[in-house]
Amino acid sequence: MLELNTENTRPFISSDRLGSIKSRVESAHGAVLGKTGAGSEFLGWRDLVLNPNDALLEDIIATATRIREDADVLVCVGIGGSYLGARAVIEALTPFFPTDHGPEILFAGHHLSGAYLKQLLEYLDGKSVYLNVISKSGTTLEPAIAFRVLRHWMAERFDDAGDRIIVTTDATRGKLNELRGAHGYRKYVIPDDVGGRFSVLTPVGLLPISAAGIDVRELFYGAAEAAKQLSSRVDNPALEYAAIRYLLHEDGFTTEVLAVFEPRLSAIASWWQQLFGESEGKEGNGLFPAAVQYTTDLHSLGQYMQDGRRNVIETFLIEKNPESGLNIPAVDGPEDGLEYLVGKPVSHVNRKAFEGTAQAHADGGVPNLTISIERASAAELGSLIYFFEHAVAVGGYLLDVNPFDQPGVEAYKSAMYQLLGK
Amino acid sequence: MLELNTENTRPFISSDRLGSIKSRVESAHGAVLGKTGAGSEFLGWRDLVLNPNDALLEDIIATATRIREDADVLVCVGIGGSYLGARAVIEALTPFFPTDHGPEILFAGHHLSGAYLKQLLEYLDGKSVYLNVISKSGTTLEPAIAFRVLRHWMAERFDDAGDRIIVTTDATRGKLNELRGAHGYRKYVIPDDVGGRFSVLTPVGLLPISAAGIDVRELFYGAAEAAKQLSSRVDNPALEYAAIRYLLHEDGFTTEVLAVFEPRLSAIASWWQQLFGESEGKEGNGLFPAAVQYTTDLHSLGQYMQDGRRNVIETFLIEKNPESGLNIPAVDGPEDGLEYLVGKPVSHVNRKAFEGTAQAHADGGVPNLTISIERASAAELGSLIYFFEHAVAVGGYLLDVNPFDQPGVEAYKSAMYQLLGK
Repeated sequence: MLELNTENTRPFISSDRLGSIKSRVESAHGAVLGKTGAGSEFLGWRDLVLNPNDALLEDIIATATRIREDADVLVCVGIGGSYLGARAVIEALTPFFPTDHGPEILFAGHHLSGAYLKQLLEYLDGKSVYLNVISKSGTTLEPAIAFRVLRHWMAERFDDAGDRIIVTTDATRGKLNELRGAHGYRKYVIPDDVGGRFSVLTPVGLLPISAAGIDVRELFYGAAEAAKQLSSRVDNPALEYAAIRYLLHEDGFTTEVLAVFEPRLSAIASWWQQLFGESEGKEGNGLFPAAVQYTTDLHSLGQYMQDGRRNVIETFLIEKNPESGLNIPAVDGPEDGLEYLVGKPVSHVNRKAFEGTAQAHADGGVPNLTISIERASAAELGSLIYFFEHAVAVGGYLLDVNPFDQPGVEAYKSAMYQLLGK
Repeated sequence: MLELNTENTRPFISSDRLGSIKSRVESAHGAVLGKTGAGSEFLGWRDLVLNPNDALLEDIIATATRIREDADVLVCVGIGGSYLGARAVIEALTPFFPTDHGPEILFAGHHLSGAYLKQLLEYLDGKSVYLNVISKSGTTLEPAIAFRVLRHWMAERFDDAGDRIIVTTDATRGKLNELRGAHGYRKYVIPDDVGGRFSVLTPVGLLPISAAGIDVRELFYGAAEAAKQLSSRVDNPALEYAAIRYLLHEDGFTTEVLAVFEPRLSAIASWWQQLFGESEGKEGNGLFPAAVQYTTDLHSLGQYMQDGRRNVIETFLIEKNPESGLNIPAVDGPEDGLEYLVGKPVSHVNRKAFEGTAQAHADGGVPNLTISIERASAAELGSLIYFFEHAVAVGGYLLDVNPFDQPGVEAYKSAMYQLLGK
């Protein structure tokens, strides 16, 4: 199980204050477990890991295996929760550079760049392409446009285009069900009781992740194990994370930076950004969630973090035992100032950079927490996913908001549709 | 010249207030022009565009041409200002997917991932590799480690390794000059009066950008033209941007989101993040700079932007006339709800998404500004770079800080070096 270190929040929050909200935290936790809070009809993300559907997992793996055998590229068409979770796990667990093992996983329908779509079609030309379109309603504009462009293009190129397209959508409703009926696409269901940002452990995330060659059983059962542990006791890191964030928010901190120290984990921070921003950022509440990658961004945001307006808290996401990569080699010739590091793994230096940062930022007035996993693996990421989901549900209840709706996202869409003359 | 639309800030800032700081803005502008403000020994980023060195540009282009002819990969080793500017311009102006034209540009030394370095070496194996190491002191830890690893690796593989390595560093001081002397590396100079985050129009940025096949003359003279225009009059968009941000900061807004609507411009936002965060984020001042990409992040941060804590301002960076990409095609079969868009370019939909967002977020309590360029081109990006540089210099003076230093970044380094036993 992951560990939470809150030592660098102690100068900012007294143990008395933490104690004083203990009962509120426990009742928020109870509302999650007992389905008695606002939006409790959307707690399916808990049910699904508490009651694993192994037949569904096997079915997804079988489809993914076919894709891995036959595809050069799998294009995943989706946005928001139909995109960020899959990307997060895939980037965390696949190599940085292209390999010959299995299909390349590309994304589309995650923005409105016409130039991207055009270049994507050129890039796909001559390749064996599969497509997974992921949308509950089928009408979200970005994936709907990309799917129209791509299925039109595929129909002209593949006799078996219908077999190469998989839809992940609502059980019965929505435009994708109509299209699927007409073209015979294979289909996976997005449960009604799981919101987009909580859907990575449904077929929404599992099919792309499995097609990338990642063991989705391990991912899923990592989450299931965390769900058991975090549900069974109240002295657990998810509740502690929720409580501390809440108190700092109450004290006027406005921004939470989630900082990873491995570039592969950056997309986890982007997934977290949606999970927390969309769950808590309502009715004038919530910490603005900012995703950063250290040490890269220490060389851009480090000055602000150390010495800017004191309204920021920081959460580090760390591997205790990361892949060491390589050791710093001995070299001949003039000194470059690194002799004291010869033979040390680069990961050792990265670890010390993290420790130095946590200490310096705390000294500079930034309360910070550290979430440590053993090493990024499917099981550990599953556990981390459930941890954040549970924490944000409790956090939403502490703020007295419904953590499972997102009423604010309709405003720009209405304005846009009006401008488009829909 | 770019345009600044401030209409959606008017409900938040009265024209009286803007008028009342006019003289302060003009004197900050005067301090930049006359080199009379704090840190004025670091105003070389203005001098260099006001007095173009064409011989240097030609020399850089000649080196870049050799790299383009002979390299499969150019690895650029640098971090912070020695990385973000080049990446920003290269990503904005090169295709999304790999091509056969010219070398691939990769980065290293921009974090401490041992796994990345190891996989990078594997990926480089068998390829014709050139390397540009960019560091003023030569002792910044991330690039120093990556450079040691990479030059060690190159020495074992290339008889002409010394000809394949180019250093961009201080004129005379620092470890890279010693190494260069011993190995005969080609060298470009980082001027003493230009700080890292202002260095993209020095060899720091220009060599990688030129090696990517981008016309650095156009980039440079785009900036030079903007420098002339923004220096010659006080009713200019850089001063207006600085003034409005300052007043909103004074009113308690804590965070500025820079939102692009084309994924190719995302790295421009990351470059901006360093420029503004490091220049203003000191002595308890500054807006926290957050870089986002819409419409992607409307599906993660949109809820917060519309309806979360009202402490956020937003700046949109828009192309008035973007590459249209492709038009939405007509298709047979069941309706997918997009018939009203058939024949329209995707860029048209993206434009309306921007307009709808600006309107909805203003209605929701987020003051927002729009910076419009005609289209992302080398010249327009040069102009944009100078615009932001000038604006942040003025903005720093309004906050009464030195916009050109970064004293806070030493704290974590000291803590780290102590932990490393240096």
